[in-house]
Amino acid sequence: MKEEKVDIAVIGGVAAGTSAAAAAVRENKEAKVVLFEKDRFISYGGCGIPYYIEGLTKSYKDIIVFTPEDFKRSKGVDVRILHEVTSIDPKNKSLKVKRLEDSEEINVFFDKLIISTGAKAVMPQIDGLKEGERIFKVRTLQDAIRLKTFLNDNAPKDAVILGGGYIGLEMAEALSANGMNVTIIEMMDHVMPTADVQMSEAIERELLKNNVRIMTKTKLNFVEETEESLRLSTTNGVLESDILLVTIGVAPESELAKASGITTSIKDAIDVRADMSTNFKDVYSCGDCATAPHRLTGESVYIPLGTTANKQGRIAGRNAAGKYEEFKGVLGTAVTKIFALEYARTGLTYREASEKFKAGMTLVTSKSKAHYYPGNREVQIMLVYEKGSGKLLGAQMAGGEISKRIDVVASAITAGMTVEELSTIDMAYAPPFSPVWDPVLVAANVAKKDV
Amino acid sequence: MKEEKVDIAVIGGVAAGTSAAAAAVRENKEAKVVLFEKDRFISYGGCGIPYYIEGLTKSYKDIIVFTPEDFKRSKGVDVRILHEVTSIDPKNKSLKVKRLEDSEEINVFFDKLIISTGAKAVMPQIDGLKEGERIFKVRTLQDAIRLKTFLNDNAPKDAVILGGGYIGLEMAEALSANGMNVTIIEMMDHVMPTADVQMSEAIERELLKNNVRIMTKTKLNFVEETEESLRLSTTNGVLESDILLVTIGVAPESELAKASGITTSIKDAIDVRADMSTNFKDVYSCGDCATAPHRLTGESVYIPLGTTANKQGRIAGRNAAGKYEEFKGVLGTAVTKIFALEYARTGLTYREASEKFKAGMTLVTSKSKAHYYPGNREVQIMLVYEKGSGKLLGAQMAGGEISKRIDVVASAITAGMTVEELSTIDMAYAPPFSPVWDPVLVAANVAKKDV
Repeated sequence: MKEEKVDIAVIGGVAAGTSAAAAAVRENKEAKVVLFEKDRFISYGGCGIPYYIEGLTKSYKDIIVFTPEDFKRSKGVDVRILHEVTSIDPKNKSLKVKRLEDSEEINVFFDKLIISTGAKAVMPQIDGLKEGERIFKVRTLQDAIRLKTFLNDNAPKDAVILGGGYIGLEMAEALSANGMNVTIIEMMDHVMPTADVQMSEAIERELLKNNVRIMTKTKLNFVEETEESLRLSTTNGVLESDILLVTIGVAPESELAKASGITTSIKDAIDVRADMSTNFKDVYSCGDCATAPHRLTGESVYIPLGTTANKQGRIAGRNAAGKYEEFKGVLGTAVTKIFALEYARTGLTYREASEKFKAGMTLVTSKSKAHYYPGNREVQIMLVYEKGSGKLLGAQMAGGEISKRIDVVASAITAGMTVEELSTIDMAYAPPFSPVWDPVLVAANVAKKDV
Repeated sequence: MKEEKVDIAVIGGVAAGTSAAAAAVRENKEAKVVLFEKDRFISYGGCGIPYYIEGLTKSYKDIIVFTPEDFKRSKGVDVRILHEVTSIDPKNKSLKVKRLEDSEEINVFFDKLIISTGAKAVMPQIDGLKEGERIFKVRTLQDAIRLKTFLNDNAPKDAVILGGGYIGLEMAEALSANGMNVTIIEMMDHVMPTADVQMSEAIERELLKNNVRIMTKTKLNFVEETEESLRLSTTNGVLESDILLVTIGVAPESELAKASGITTSIKDAIDVRADMSTNFKDVYSCGDCATAPHRLTGESVYIPLGTTANKQGRIAGRNAAGKYEEFKGVLGTAVTKIFALEYARTGLTYREASEKFKAGMTLVTSKSKAHYYPGNREVQIMLVYEKGSGKLLGAQMAGGEISKRIDVVASAITAGMTVEELSTIDMAYAPPFSPVWDPVLVAANVAKKDV
């Protein structure tokens, strides 16, 4: 078997892996950094897939940040696409890598290893449910290209989306924009089941306004695929559909790591310390395959998001190259656009907070701009806090122009502020951008009476 | 002379006065709260005037929050419009009030007094420069109605704006939207002279793109008004114009207070303590006539803004009604829209910070959305911080979609964060709303290397 010696090996090259590899070279220009990616794409914005499907982003090439060639040239990283790492030996610090073109195996010895294998779309165990002609997952750029090609070639009319979380809801908008009739099947009581119910209801109103059919408390029993269409048997009747998207969630791509003795924890994600190291010396992990500390609770959580992947990647890369930095953790801050509605969250939902704290909750409805300025939108803001102390625990927002308002609360939670303190922040005001009392301040003013 | 006894008298009824009066009644429903306003309007959004002139807000009535009748009915405050307070006797706790309709004088005895007389437009001492047929200030709703009526009746073609600060720039947009040719005369080197020069330059580019003529380092020598037009002699030549707007700034309306022995300080604003009290027991002041503590420097400053007026008003009202609350201070956070450009600031500019601290500054150019999402705008972010400690001192932003990003930094400054800490905040990301590294994080990441 061919052998090779590298300074830093990186497995997986989407968000965390490319961030890590680039950061490692920036930190140590002498280091031989090699990135192995089994796919033919690296460095793309997976979060952009719904907008490519929608047609807002014209080509899949637009969501690629770097081609392998560009990345190699501009970042100085030796990128090997279509190279699959088949096993890791963390004790002897080596990898077995298979070149997919010709199946040749190489034994790669490393000084430091960064595992950034990402996450995979979860396919539930349901009869007849597997990726195929009319059944899609929407995780990788390859998935997206296959779906877009099918839409272009077949102009399907009806779509069913299994799973009403972030991706499912963004895809509902994307497929509607393609002129399709969309039905969402969600097992739980509401779409966006990770949100508090008031937020889910706001999202459901927006979906219904846009003619998306919502089937909640509904399970898929089995799927039959014919030449012409799909037959979906659910606990709420049978649906015919041209296509089915499976968006019930993602799971860390951690089998390779587990098989080599690297410790995984919550949801089988690779367990990392603050410096992104694993239980093996010189082996790091980051991104959608790894855990992260929650900034409020201190607990290890699995909340795979692009922002975290980029931040963890940089730190893993620098540390592998000889620095010492710590990742400060996540608040699960996220935002999504569902038609004209924005939904965002940071910290804990009221439901989550109630399990750990004596939690209070305030929900206000306000406006995004001065009442007399055109384009004013309704904004719902929910603050979650600890009763007694008033310490901020979380926020959720639904409505218009909230995407950066959530970051104000994320900043306040990071600082350990109370709702009282939040209510005193000197925020910007001009009629095109907010009422004189910003909705966040309105919510804080109401919340402090409830503390 | 007629005499009257009230529990809480409030002088002035725009933002701070109405906030104070309403808060006082909420705090103590039994209190007889009387608000004296010499104008016929109360409770309007002065910041909305440019949008009413622009035509985005159809009627001046739209920017009124409460008519005197509505305010009386809904808030339980006895509102007396067209009542001018002519003197204050803070020792004997009485006011002389003139009813403008019939010039009758009333002697009003109060338990508590709240002075919220606001600010007035400054008219510089220049030959021929006084409000008149073709010369306007843009401070009160009456000013706005007079200007709008003139525009409607005379369809003037050319406008000169004296003073390139917030109001002058917003009016440049408003008058351009009315089809006018606009020239801004600014005495200083750049428009928005309170901003750092890089920000002023971004604003100037936007003005020029929109065909606004800018004359900086230019003084107005004298004005001649004819039936047909105005002749403006400046240090850079003579201009003909149909109208002239004077927007060089505002000054506190504090003569009445000063004449009664109430202490004023910076820029003649009424000196207030954290509870909004003045040097006289039972006499409070708030809003555009009063000082405020700067949250970073602790110094007393005069930064008259609607948000502060509302916050201070509430606190003054509650305290006058028997509570004890403190106003936490200002960061001078402000935002404005100049055509399609947003400019915002919080904390100190680099120039201001350099006078008090060993200050550092980082300026980055980034994007408001993911690079592949339509409608993506350029964003310039300047962070100002203390060298060594890295403590955040201020931020300025110019570009698209920055109006709430400034509040994230305002929150971070309020919490005493460093640029390093700012760089670790878990901010929301989705392609329609930000790049995966929000511009604020990009700026913080660059800034921390300069600390």
